Amino acid sequence: MARLVRLAGSDDADAVGRLLHDFNREFNEPTPAATALAGRMRQLLNGGDTLVLLAGDGPDGLAVLRFRAAIWSTGQECYLAELYVTPARRGQGLGRALMEAALDEARKRGADTMDIGVDEPDHVARHLYESLGFTNRTGGPDGPVMFVYERELLSHDSVPRALVASPNRTTMHPAEIR
Amino acid sequence: MARLVRLAGSDDADAVGRLLHDFNREFNEPTPAATALAGRMRQLLNGGDTLVLLAGDGPDGLAVLRFRAAIWSTGQECYLAELYVTPARRGQGLGRALMEAALDEARKRGADTMDIGVDEPDHVARHLYESLGFTNRTGGPDGPVMFVYERELLSHDSVPRALVASPNRTTMHPAEIR
Repeated sequence: MARLVRLAGSDDADAVGRLLHDFNREFNEPTPAATALAGRMRQLLNGGDTLVLLAGDGPDGLAVLRFRAAIWSTGQECYLAELYVTPARRGQGLGRALMEAALDEARKRGADTMDIGVDEPDHVARHLYESLGFTNRTGGPDGPVMFVYERELLSHDSVPRALVASPNRTTMHPAEIR
Repeated sequence: MARLVRLAGSDDADAVGRLLHDFNREFNEPTPAATALAGRMRQLLNGGDTLVLLAGDGPDGLAVLRFRAAIWSTGQECYLAELYVTPARRGQGLGRALMEAALDEARKRGADTMDIGVDEPDHVARHLYESLGFTNRTGGPDGPVMFVYERELLSHDSVPRALVASPNRTTMHPAEIR
């Protein structure tokens, strides 16, 4: 039996771009074209700080991980930037399989921690993360919740960068699996 | 008059390590030694993806910024990893001056967005960020809040990495200015 989840190579950039594009479309977010996203993801996959996991034969889902040197240890820190499963394949365990593979790969690469940004109403995603040991509370289960704050830096008179369809696109894309 | 805020060079790594150490101590977090933090910050400052701003002559405060290539644009994304002002210098505008310089430097480096992780009770920090245009809501002022989820990846039988005083240290250090 083929493995459910595999690591993407730069040959997979077109499929990755398509999935990211479909992700934005489904949630009515402005999106660069699939080809532009493919080109960007090819750059990032070749750059060394980005890892993509693909699930299913379509492929039907992906996880995008970013790595960098940690401040508080000599290891790496890992950020789960995107998690997506196509509507037709939801409820079949692909999201969980992607997350389990993501945790394995992050450990292999020397990451000490993994962080995720999630919108409050994304209960399916939050339940998945919580079931895998993630928490949005600092200092223990009774600790305060941790918020993401963000802002855009483009000024009104600046020229939007090529890839961006709209400067209103949020960076902190919620990891959606619903 | 000397500028209130300046960019740290690798010669400033000792001062940066001392401030990060004092930051942890003040909030009763386990901390690597100031010298270990200085060594790590020297590596990061030389690595190119990290920028530190220092405030005051002590120096008496710092902001640590991390940069990486964005997914949704051809620009960079910036993460404010740490913000700290020593107790004796609080309430004198150093936190705001650091943040204004951070926004300027992030724009100069081609960042389209800046993200921050903040604990819910850090009202002083949250008020500062909100006054500078940051939001913890997605899609507008009535949108849902965005949470940080995190977990550690070290297993119980793994050897802690040299710099870490305790594997319980959270990565998502709240940006503290109170």
